[in-house]
Amino acid sequence: MDPRKDAVRKAVVIGAGPVGCLTAMSLAKMGWQVDVFEARPDMRLSASKAAAQQRSINLAISSRGIAALQAVDSAAAARFLKTVIPMRGRMIHDIHGIQHSQQYDPDGQCINSIDRALLNEGLLEEILAVPNVRVFFQRKVLSVDFDRRLMTARDGDANTDFEIPFDFCVGADGSFSVVRRQLMRVVRMDYQQEYIPHEYLELKIQPGKDADGSPTFLLDPNHLHIWPRHSFMLIALPNKDMTFTCTLFAPTSEFELLKDPDAIVAWFKSYFPDALALIGERPLLDSFTNNPRSSLISIKANPYHYKDRAIILGDAAHSMVPFYGQGLNCGLEDVRVMSVMLQEANIDLSARRESDEYVDERLAGALSRYSNTRHEDLLAICDLAMDNYVEMRHLVTTPAYLFRKALDNVLFSLGSRQRFTLASLGPMLSRIPFPSRNPSGWIPLYTMVTFRPDISYATAKRKAVQQTELLTNAGILGSAVLAAASMGLTWMALFHRTRRQL
Amino acid sequence: MDPRKDAVRKAVVIGAGPVGCLTAMSLAKMGWQVDVFEARPDMRLSASKAAAQQRSINLAISSRGIAALQAVDSAAAARFLKTVIPMRGRMIHDIHGIQHSQQYDPDGQCINSIDRALLNEGLLEEILAVPNVRVFFQRKVLSVDFDRRLMTARDGDANTDFEIPFDFCVGADGSFSVVRRQLMRVVRMDYQQEYIPHEYLELKIQPGKDADGSPTFLLDPNHLHIWPRHSFMLIALPNKDMTFTCTLFAPTSEFELLKDPDAIVAWFKSYFPDALALIGERPLLDSFTNNPRSSLISIKANPYHYKDRAIILGDAAHSMVPFYGQGLNCGLEDVRVMSVMLQEANIDLSARRESDEYVDERLAGALSRYSNTRHEDLLAICDLAMDNYVEMRHLVTTPAYLFRKALDNVLFSLGSRQRFTLASLGPMLSRIPFPSRNPSGWIPLYTMVTFRPDISYATAKRKAVQQTELLTNAGILGSAVLAAASMGLTWMALFHRTRRQL
Repeated sequence: MDPRKDAVRKAVVIGAGPVGCLTAMSLAKMGWQVDVFEARPDMRLSASKAAAQQRSINLAISSRGIAALQAVDSAAAARFLKTVIPMRGRMIHDIHGIQHSQQYDPDGQCINSIDRALLNEGLLEEILAVPNVRVFFQRKVLSVDFDRRLMTARDGDANTDFEIPFDFCVGADGSFSVVRRQLMRVVRMDYQQEYIPHEYLELKIQPGKDADGSPTFLLDPNHLHIWPRHSFMLIALPNKDMTFTCTLFAPTSEFELLKDPDAIVAWFKSYFPDALALIGERPLLDSFTNNPRSSLISIKANPYHYKDRAIILGDAAHSMVPFYGQGLNCGLEDVRVMSVMLQEANIDLSARRESDEYVDERLAGALSRYSNTRHEDLLAICDLAMDNYVEMRHLVTTPAYLFRKALDNVLFSLGSRQRFTLASLGPMLSRIPFPSRNPSGWIPLYTMVTFRPDISYATAKRKAVQQTELLTNAGILGSAVLAAASMGLTWMALFHRTRRQL
Repeated sequence: MDPRKDAVRKAVVIGAGPVGCLTAMSLAKMGWQVDVFEARPDMRLSASKAAAQQRSINLAISSRGIAALQAVDSAAAARFLKTVIPMRGRMIHDIHGIQHSQQYDPDGQCINSIDRALLNEGLLEEILAVPNVRVFFQRKVLSVDFDRRLMTARDGDANTDFEIPFDFCVGADGSFSVVRRQLMRVVRMDYQQEYIPHEYLELKIQPGKDADGSPTFLLDPNHLHIWPRHSFMLIALPNKDMTFTCTLFAPTSEFELLKDPDAIVAWFKSYFPDALALIGERPLLDSFTNNPRSSLISIKANPYHYKDRAIILGDAAHSMVPFYGQGLNCGLEDVRVMSVMLQEANIDLSARRESDEYVDERLAGALSRYSNTRHEDLLAICDLAMDNYVEMRHLVTTPAYLFRKALDNVLFSLGSRQRFTLASLGPMLSRIPFPSRNPSGWIPLYTMVTFRPDISYATAKRKAVQQTELLTNAGILGSAVLAAASMGLTWMALFHRTRRQL
């Protein structure tokens, strides 16, 4: 006799960030009773909101994240998309303040600036409206006994510890995940964490005033602005309140030189004169004083699950540097992929009452398939994110890069391509196998990673390598640099053609 | 005013294994008051001794470990060397039970089989005799507040927690180090752990009886015995009591096939018939039932220290797979290298009473130099250890390997080499810079790693790559395989010459 027979299956989700919330929504739809535990206070309370906002980089949500939201709840996804600001491309600011636009996608698809707090609050509101989901704040997980299916947490209100039994435990508790650390005690987990010797600091551009005196954006809001300076860079993303959140990325050694106000202002004057004018000297210095200099970490793990009862998703499973704008998108995609696998394994607790043994076995199989198939995708995007730092702060300024980008776009429009729109995929997403199709035709890497959730990260990376090899073997890439350097014309022509496409 | 002024400087060493004990000896000689905390009970008590013995592979101590012992206490080192059994080479057992000897070193230097418990007990006895060292057993470290220089530990006897203030904290607490985990909270530590998909199991060969009925070794005690079977292998090391400790290394998937007694015996009959005869069927099956199947993990970290007050040494800093026999040697060498750096920085607390600020600054510099210079050596030996698994279980059986080994030996004896003996280095070890000399002449990789503590691991690895490139470019290595395969004679001749040198 099984004591759990006929009882409701209970999932605990650790972490009420976007990944934890989407997990709770998805599991609840499959018939699980879901309890979400968050160590921090309710972020919808204003004090903790301010604290949260100071800590994280702005988010860019793109097709993978949107597809994941749509797969779980298309109505909710539509609501979120009303709060975003689409960004068509990068706006490169040169040292003289002159701006050049580089479109992200030959077809004009956009990434979307979204306020992390808004997205998180919206998702929280959604799950609080679901009957079989409960959310507990200020409940910090201390330990998890996976074999006894028992979690110990601290009640931050009462300052006491309590135990929670569970059937399934999902760790969505971020880069410094407690669930991951507990899993490492029972799973032979390969694990790697690497700090890059760079740090970041957040700055702010306030709204300006237009002719009528109404507030207005001081930069084009439909671009991600970049000031690439080779070893460091500044970026800016638009917010709905007409401000821009700026992030300065630089080597720790460079930050060390910016010790006093004069040094900071002089440095901005020589490298970012136009940005300095928009930020203002006083606010700039205040940000240097008040905002933390944060580290950049890359984390890889494998496997992600334990038997039939635990899994880690999002940053808890893979932290990447933020340079491909895929951290959140990948985390939300984790939820979609896991959900597809649970559904493929017919672990739909609402559909029928299975025996516990049957569910346990199917669950173990689904989680194991997740680890086995998802791993190469997560490695790929972690590596691509690292590579993209060099692209953003340096390569975007080089003729060879611009030539390649133009060439990619030409080949893309010439190539035989199946048209792909998100809307066509949305409703059927939960049923397509993953990855669903072989990509055909020539597709730029950025497009595959950012706008094609039907192409897995690993497939995108492999295909990009093949495309580069093709061009190199054809002698096109080698000669491109030469041609650009000697004539200084070809790339200018191509670059301007790219701009005209906007 | 500094509250610590004129007080004795206190070091806490976590872990009373060989590395922790040698650290305590070395720091005590420099004038530190040393407290050693060990989570387990005193291993000299018989019950915990049996438990400890079941857990670990036999140790092979060679020149680096011996040099480290000598540098700290040459009289103690001499005492330990009386308890070892020298092993001149590998004894390869083929599938028919025929044995071939492969000498380790062209000059006949040996590695030494040592009982882990004997070595550890001996070192414990040494430090318990030092006035400024105290050892506490059953004291498990729970957390370390490095900024407040305060450690919290659990008293396993009284079952209470207590706090210990310290000036300097050394983590020698093994692969699953608590000190390392605590350090990762304050240090941006790059960290990597990797399980290889192989496991190991310990077996035993009991003594036989000679013509007089006295106990005797059933195999040549002056060899490390290997049964290389390509994807798996069995090894055996001699003990003073005329037993051999055998270790079976195999892929987890291979172990999974050995589920019942019949399967185990049949498998041994087909792959290790001579070993099965020596072990016996009943004891073999008992070992499979009673002994754990242990995992093999490789751990890399960087940096190893925090400011002027903490460092991790030995397995806590770098766990390697056991296939180069360097885990212990490298850990003991860590202590020697750290001690040299502390001495070079004139942090000799017994010599004079420095101001605390001066000592803190010098200590921070010395620990930072340790991390900076030691890292490439630790990476090198972790990688070499991994490579050597393939050498031990597979390559040693190939003609190309035997040809290369013979060739190395010829080049070594032809080359201009400075003669190196441990005795000549011993007393001056603590004063030589590290690495002390550029190696000159042709030296086989195994010899550099195992018998030349004056050549750092990283230098050995680099030089080996250069030597292989030289041979490859000269067309010697490529043709060797061909020649061996087509004629089947060359290597036989060279191989037998190697054997005759014994």
